[in-house]
Amino acid sequence: MPELRQNVATKEWVIIATDRARRPADFADLKRPFTHSRPARVSSCPFCPGNETSSAPPVLEVRTEAGWDLRVVPNKFPALSNGAEVERSFEGISRRMSGFGVHEVLIESPRHNKTSGLLKDDEVARTLRAMRDRGRELARDPRLMMTIYFKNHGSAAGTSLEHPHCQMISLPVVPHQIRQRLGDAMAYFDETGNCVYCDMVRQELEAGSRVVVEGEHFVAFLPFAALSPFHLWILPRRHMPIFTQASDKELASLASVLRETLARLYFGLGDPDFNYVIRSAPSHEERSRSFHWYLSIVPKVSENAGFELGSGMFINTALPEESAAFLRAVSLPM
Amino acid sequence: MPELRQNVATKEWVIIATDRARRPADFADLKRPFTHSRPARVSSCPFCPGNETSSAPPVLEVRTEAGWDLRVVPNKFPALSNGAEVERSFEGISRRMSGFGVHEVLIESPRHNKTSGLLKDDEVARTLRAMRDRGRELARDPRLMMTIYFKNHGSAAGTSLEHPHCQMISLPVVPHQIRQRLGDAMAYFDETGNCVYCDMVRQELEAGSRVVVEGEHFVAFLPFAALSPFHLWILPRRHMPIFTQASDKELASLASVLRETLARLYFGLGDPDFNYVIRSAPSHEERSRSFHWYLSIVPKVSENAGFELGSGMFINTALPEESAAFLRAVSLPM
Repeated sequence: MPELRQNVATKEWVIIATDRARRPADFADLKRPFTHSRPARVSSCPFCPGNETSSAPPVLEVRTEAGWDLRVVPNKFPALSNGAEVERSFEGISRRMSGFGVHEVLIESPRHNKTSGLLKDDEVARTLRAMRDRGRELARDPRLMMTIYFKNHGSAAGTSLEHPHCQMISLPVVPHQIRQRLGDAMAYFDETGNCVYCDMVRQELEAGSRVVVEGEHFVAFLPFAALSPFHLWILPRRHMPIFTQASDKELASLASVLRETLARLYFGLGDPDFNYVIRSAPSHEERSRSFHWYLSIVPKVSENAGFELGSGMFINTALPEESAAFLRAVSLPM
Repeated sequence: MPELRQNVATKEWVIIATDRARRPADFADLKRPFTHSRPARVSSCPFCPGNETSSAPPVLEVRTEAGWDLRVVPNKFPALSNGAEVERSFEGISRRMSGFGVHEVLIESPRHNKTSGLLKDDEVARTLRAMRDRGRELARDPRLMMTIYFKNHGSAAGTSLEHPHCQMISLPVVPHQIRQRLGDAMAYFDETGNCVYCDMVRQELEAGSRVVVEGEHFVAFLPFAALSPFHLWILPRRHMPIFTQASDKELASLASVLRETLARLYFGLGDPDFNYVIRSAPSHEERSRSFHWYLSIVPKVSENAGFELGSGMFINTALPEESAAFLRAVSLPM
């Protein structure tokens, strides 16, 4: 019998379609070539060592004597332009703003064939620290209201570039969906005096059945109302509205939890295409008692169609508890 | 220079990324096989004449002496079950309801190789009337709060079945996104005394630059803040909150506008995969002064990635005014 579940934080309903359900292993495609089977350097790749001049000069670089370990560069084809002035023009149905914003690319490693799940914990921590440090820098510009941090891995996740990289887009507006999330979290706080995300971490740890990786400062689990098979959330245990508030120690814990979670997806499902995103509050919400940032991972193992488009609701054909058990059981190479 | 635009009805911001912009014709793929090049009947297709026993008995059928022209059947793999009782259990973060609902499939034509843009106006009108009539019937069940009507065409739009069909899912809840839309429309009404969708139709007709097809009772246009290239809205000129309130005469006009719009996509872009959905108010909102139903078409010519997932915002790489001009200029076979 199918079931409807509601995410207590986002208020989104999902249909858990158990009549259509597939077993977790049905989503695995272990026959496609894994990222690690690619060469470590590709001469035509704009992000590989030797091709640094394909990008504008870095805004941040981590170097050792052997060369660079990580680079943050302006996106060559930016969605928004940091040369624009912020101008609004609201007239009837025509509501527009100039496309001011900042769009950067973070090259995570000099090695072409290392996706996040294959890196070492301290390499992932380096990426997270670089994102946070750039985010802190961008937050100093009062024209920028918030930053979206994300990673696209594989063509189904929207990237043609194989080389491991993340992106950041800093926006002069707060997207409507994020305003809604903030409002919903505040309504929960009004009723309970608690942060709904803090409550969720506590209750997920108590239940245990959807938890995949537990770290010192972070917990990875499939939400009770996961929107798709293997949809995962990683939340800080400490209440923090904004990603840039995380300490080095906390980011080291996130790196370890994120790396292990991605490795479980990589080896369990056969290097699936995926996106991860950091959902964080706008810069001015640094003292919010009700919103709590988190990282969301969405492996691209299913297709959205007209129903999702027409309702904003999702149909999940896998039971979150079964998906979590499957991921916990994946054996990882030492 | 890129531009941010906001949809006055949905309050969603979109980035119109003109620096990455492609010309409308760049989205066309005229080399792939068109639907009309397929056979008119496929023996393995569950929806083709002769294979009627693959489905449960129809809940609605339109027949002539030669056989059936249209059938509505229960979905063989329903997302929700109409055998369930409506039971709620809300406990901490576990908020669940039994998966009660109705999921039906509408087979639009006996001919396998006729997608909506290739049918005649009166065949499309037949489909729309059948959807409306089933919607009216389902609305009589007080357990069902609203119906989502949608069509998936092509594998990128989430269907593996080629035979022309639509679907309806009737829900025991109002999805969060639809509640938000209702609230945003009411806020606009509070401020202006107008329905925002009525205002939009009027202003789009005045502007003209984004209009693609004008009918007696319906208008097809790209919204000012279209979320993707060739994202189209078809709105009734008359204020109506719910799809099932449309008259036969109005549906005949919608059929003509929808058919012509889909034909312009079909011949202009090379039979793109697409979804269309009808966004309508819940059944109890039949007297709403602020919400107005519409049909939304989304051709699958671009991929969503981490940014869209993380922000709920979209990046559109085509200018809506240019896309509209392109579609208006497509020459249609007589």
